[in-house]
Amino acid sequence: MARLSRYLPILEWGRQYDRLTLTSDLLAAIIVTIMLIPQSLAYAMLAGLPPVVGLYASILPLVAYAIFGTSRTLAVGPVAVVSLMTASAAGAVAVQGTAEYLEAAITLAMLSGVMLAVMGVLRLGFLANLLSHPVISGFITASGILIATSQLKHILGIAGGGDTWPNMLLALVQGIGDTKLSTLAIGAAAMLFLFWVRKGLKPALMRLGLKARASELAAKAGPVLAVIVTILAVVTFSLEDRGVAIVGAVPQGLPPFAAPSFDAGLWSQLLIPALLISIIGFVESVSVAQTLAAKRRQRIAPNQELVGLGASNIASALSGGYPVTGGFARSVVNFDAGAETPAAGAYTAIGIALASLFLTPLLFYLPVATLAATIIVAVLSLVDLKTPVKLWRYSKGDFAAHLITIGITLLAGVEIGVIAGVGVGLLLYLWNASRPHAAIVGRVPETEHFRNVERHSVITVPHVLSIRIDEGLSYLNARWLEEYVLERIADQPEVKHVILMCSAVNAIDSSGLESLEAINHRLADGGIALHLSEVKGPVMDRLKRGQFLPELSGKIFLSQDRAFATLSQIQNPAVEPVDNWEARGLI
Amino acid sequence: MARLSRYLPILEWGRQYDRLTLTSDLLAAIIVTIMLIPQSLAYAMLAGLPPVVGLYASILPLVAYAIFGTSRTLAVGPVAVVSLMTASAAGAVAVQGTAEYLEAAITLAMLSGVMLAVMGVLRLGFLANLLSHPVISGFITASGILIATSQLKHILGIAGGGDTWPNMLLALVQGIGDTKLSTLAIGAAAMLFLFWVRKGLKPALMRLGLKARASELAAKAGPVLAVIVTILAVVTFSLEDRGVAIVGAVPQGLPPFAAPSFDAGLWSQLLIPALLISIIGFVESVSVAQTLAAKRRQRIAPNQELVGLGASNIASALSGGYPVTGGFARSVVNFDAGAETPAAGAYTAIGIALASLFLTPLLFYLPVATLAATIIVAVLSLVDLKTPVKLWRYSKGDFAAHLITIGITLLAGVEIGVIAGVGVGLLLYLWNASRPHAAIVGRVPETEHFRNVERHSVITVPHVLSIRIDEGLSYLNARWLEEYVLERIADQPEVKHVILMCSAVNAIDSSGLESLEAINHRLADGGIALHLSEVKGPVMDRLKRGQFLPELSGKIFLSQDRAFATLSQIQNPAVEPVDNWEARGLI
Repeated sequence: MARLSRYLPILEWGRQYDRLTLTSDLLAAIIVTIMLIPQSLAYAMLAGLPPVVGLYASILPLVAYAIFGTSRTLAVGPVAVVSLMTASAAGAVAVQGTAEYLEAAITLAMLSGVMLAVMGVLRLGFLANLLSHPVISGFITASGILIATSQLKHILGIAGGGDTWPNMLLALVQGIGDTKLSTLAIGAAAMLFLFWVRKGLKPALMRLGLKARASELAAKAGPVLAVIVTILAVVTFSLEDRGVAIVGAVPQGLPPFAAPSFDAGLWSQLLIPALLISIIGFVESVSVAQTLAAKRRQRIAPNQELVGLGASNIASALSGGYPVTGGFARSVVNFDAGAETPAAGAYTAIGIALASLFLTPLLFYLPVATLAATIIVAVLSLVDLKTPVKLWRYSKGDFAAHLITIGITLLAGVEIGVIAGVGVGLLLYLWNASRPHAAIVGRVPETEHFRNVERHSVITVPHVLSIRIDEGLSYLNARWLEEYVLERIADQPEVKHVILMCSAVNAIDSSGLESLEAINHRLADGGIALHLSEVKGPVMDRLKRGQFLPELSGKIFLSQDRAFATLSQIQNPAVEPVDNWEARGLI
Repeated sequence: MARLSRYLPILEWGRQYDRLTLTSDLLAAIIVTIMLIPQSLAYAMLAGLPPVVGLYASILPLVAYAIFGTSRTLAVGPVAVVSLMTASAAGAVAVQGTAEYLEAAITLAMLSGVMLAVMGVLRLGFLANLLSHPVISGFITASGILIATSQLKHILGIAGGGDTWPNMLLALVQGIGDTKLSTLAIGAAAMLFLFWVRKGLKPALMRLGLKARASELAAKAGPVLAVIVTILAVVTFSLEDRGVAIVGAVPQGLPPFAAPSFDAGLWSQLLIPALLISIIGFVESVSVAQTLAAKRRQRIAPNQELVGLGASNIASALSGGYPVTGGFARSVVNFDAGAETPAAGAYTAIGIALASLFLTPLLFYLPVATLAATIIVAVLSLVDLKTPVKLWRYSKGDFAAHLITIGITLLAGVEIGVIAGVGVGLLLYLWNASRPHAAIVGRVPETEHFRNVERHSVITVPHVLSIRIDEGLSYLNARWLEEYVLERIADQPEVKHVILMCSAVNAIDSSGLESLEAINHRLADGGIALHLSEVKGPVMDRLKRGQFLPELSGKIFLSQDRAFATLSQIQNPAVEPVDNWEARGLI
C-alpha cells in the first residue's frame, strides 16, 4: 500500500478529503479557470496550433496530474517556453496549419510523456541536473525575447516570419509598412491595459474597498477582461471588416480522442526535441512545485513528479493536446487562492471542459492581437536582466555560459540553444574539475595548523613537501594531481618526503587511486617517500580495499602536524599528540 | 626567449649539448632502430597499409618530436592501438590496398596532427581527462584482444576477415580448414621464439657472461633475429612456393612528399575518428612520458606535448606516413639504453632512413606470419586481467564502466567503444556528483566535534537541525541539496533553525548559490532560519560578492560548536570560544 501510494499519491490525500478541503479547492479552481482560458488559447497560438488545442491541453492533463503528481498546488497546462519549443520542433517537420503539424505536436506530447514517465520509473531525475542555473535562466531569457518578438507581427497586423531572432527582426522591419492601424490600436490598447493590470489593478481594487488578497486574485482576471472588451469592440465596430484578424470558428465540444503518429521516421525526428521539451518542462515545473511545497512544509518527490508530468503529457496526446508542464504564474495563483489538494486541478479541468462546451462560440470575434498582447505581457517577465549582473559578479565562467546560451538560442533556435548550454556548462565544469585548488602548506608557528606558504609565514623544511589537496580525486583531476605533484618535485630537488594532506578529499575514485599509485611509484623511483595525512574515514575504508596501502612508500598519519613533526624532526611543543581517528574528527 | 623555448624545447636542451650526450644518444638510437624496424613494418600491416608506410611513419615524425616535444626520452612512431584505430577509420571510407585507403590514412594523420597542435596551443589538454582509467584500460584490453585475433589469420595462412570480434572469430572458424601448415609452422615458431625472448633470452645471455643491462637491451633485438631467421628459412626452403605469404617488394628510398586529401566529404567522415585517435594517442603518450620523466626528476609540459605530437603527425602525413604517437615499449628501451635528449629520436630517424634506403630489398622474403607473430606477442601484454579484479574490489561503478567499454569495443568496434566509454564514465560521474554525501550531525558530549547522528550517540535538540555537507556545491548537486534540506524539514516539524556545516565545501558555483538562496527563502517562508558554519575562506570571499549574505535569515558562525551552542542554548563547557577565522583554520 505504501509502495502503491508512492506511485499514486491520490491514495494518500484522497482518504482525508472533506467538505472544507472541497470548498477551498473549488474556489481556487474557479480563479485558475478564469486565468487559464485566455492563456491556453494564446499559448496554443504561440505553438502554431489552433486555439482550441490549448483548451484540450488544459483538461485531461490536469486530471492525470491530480492522480499521479506529488505537488498539492502545481497547476499544469500549456506554458510559454514549451509552446515555443513545440513550434520549433513541429515546424521542422511540417507546415503550420496542416494536419501533419498538429499530428507532430500531438506526437511530441506522447513522446515527451513516455520519456518523462520512463525517467521517473528509472529514477533518472538527476539528468535534469545537467541544466545549470545560468544555462536555464539564459535559455528562458532568450525564449522570452524570441516569443515576444514572434508575437509583434500580430500586434502590427503584418505577415512577419523567421525562426531565428535576426530573421524575425528582419521580417518585422520589411513588413512594418503594411501595419494595420486598427489591429495596432487593439493590440497596443490590450498591452497597455494588461501592463496596467499587473501594476495598477490591485491598488485600484483596494481603493474600492476590496481586501488585499481578494484584490490580488481579482487582478488575475485582467486578461479575461481584455478578451471580453476587445471582442465587444470588434463586434461593435465591425473591426474584422477593417482587417483586424480574429480567432474565428473554434470547434465546440469536449476534446476528441486522438492518437499520435506511430511513424518511425517522425519519431526519430522528434526524439531529441521531445527529450529537450521533457527536461526543460521538468526543470521548470519541479522548481515551482518545490517553492510552493516548502511554503507549507509539504514535500514533493522529484522522480514521482516525472511520472506525474509524463502521465499529463500522455493524457494530452490522447485528447488532441500538445506538450504541457507545470506553469509558474498559474501555480502561484492556485496556491494563493487556497488550493489544498491536486483535486483543485481536476476541478479546473471541469471548468475548462465547460468552457470548451459552451464558451467557444463567443470566441469567434476575439482579436488575435489580444492573444498576442497576453503572451507579450506574460513573457516579458521571463526576460531576466538581474541574473547576468549577478553572475558577472559571482563567477565569470557562469556568466559566459549564460551569455553563450542566450546568444546561441537567439541565433540558432531553442533546441541548439539548450544543447549548447548543456555543452558549455559541462565543459566549464570539467575544466574547473580538472584543475582544482591545491596548495603547498607549512606549519603556523606554535600551532598545529597548516597554511598556504604563499599567503602566510609558516615553518617548512627543504626535505619535506606538504601539499594540501582541496578537492576529491576523480578521473577528471587525477592527471592534474600527477602533474601538480611531479612539477613541485622537479622544482625542489632536495625533497625526500611528500605529504599529501587529505583533509578536504571527500572521495577518491579508481582513477584517483591509480594516480596515487603512479605518484607513489614515480616518487619512489626518484628516491622520495609519499605520505598521506588526515585521510577521512570513508576514504580510508576504500583505500584499504586496494593494493595502494601495502605499496605506499611512506606512511599514513592521523594528523598533518604529526606527519610534519615526524618527518621534519621538528617537534611541535604546543600540541599534544593525539592518536585515535575518532578524536581527530576524521570519521 | 623563455616564451619561444616553451614552444621550442629544443632551444633549451640544444644549448647544453656535448660530446658525452651525443655518445649516449647515439647508442640509444642504434638499439631503438633495431627494435623499431620490425615493429614499424608489423604495425603498418596491422593498419592495413603497405609495410613501407610504417618505415615512413618512423622518420620525419621523430625529427618533429625532437624539435617540439618536451620529453627527453619518449620514442614516437607507429603503435598498436593507434594502428588498429587507423585500420577501422580508413576501412570505413575505402578498401584496403587501394590508393584511397592510403590517402585516408595520410589524411587521418594530418587531421589528427592539426587537432593535437590546436589543442596544445589552446591548452585543451584537460579534454583527455574525459577518459577515466577504467575506460582507457578497458579500451586497451579490448584493443589487444581485437588486434591479436585479427592477426591469427596470418599465422594460419587463411583469409579471415570481420571488423568486430564475433565476426573475426566466425571468419577464423569458417576458414580454419584452409590452414597452411607451412605458414602455421613459421608463425607458431616465431611466436614461441618471441615469447621465449621475453622471458628467457635475458637470463640466457647473462649465463653467457653478459652484464644484466646489456642482456636486457640485447634481448630487445629478438624480433630482428626472428625476422632474419624466418627470411633465411623462406629463402632456403623456397617456402613462398608452398604458399607462405611474404611481404614482397618494398619500395626502396626515402619517404616521398605526400599531400593529404583536402576533400571536405572525406574530412568530415574522418573528423571523429581523428579526434579519438588524437585523444587516445595523447593519453597513452603523455602517461609514458610522465613515468619516464619522473624517474630522472625531469618535467614534461602536457600542453606542449600536444604540440609535439601534433607536429609529429603533420610530419607523418607530409611524408606518406600514418598516425603516430609515443610508444610504451620503445620509450622504455630508449630510456634504459641511456638516451639523454630528444636528439636520440632524431638519430633513430636517421637509422630508419638508412634502413629504408638499403635494407628494404632484404625484406622481400619476410613472411607475413613473422610480422603477425611480432604483433600478437607485443599486444598480449596490453590485455590486462588484473585491473577488472582490482576495480571490482574498489568500486562497482568503475568496474561496470570498464566492462562496458570492453564489451562495446569488442562488439561494435574501437570508435563506438571509446565514445561509449566516455559516455558511461561521465554518466557515472554525474550520477555520483548529483547525490553527494551529507549527514545530520550532533555534538559528541564533552567535545567540540560533531558527528553523524546515525553512527554516534550525540547531543541534538529538536528545534536545531545541523546538516554537514561533504561536497562542494555545483549545479550538478544543487538540486539535490534543495531536496535534501527540504525533506529533512518535512520530517521534523519542530525545527526552527537549520545549520549547514560547510567544513567540506570546497567551492560553490552560481547554481549552488541560487540553491542556497532558494533554501533560505523557502525555509524563511516556513518560519525557519538558515545558518552556515565553518565556511572556508575562499568560499566566504565568493559569497560576499552576492546578495546571499544580506538576505540570509540566520547567521554565519565560525564554528559548528559555536552555532550549536548559540542556537540550542546548550553551552559547551569543554571548549573556549574562539573568535577569529585564522585560529579556526578556515583560511
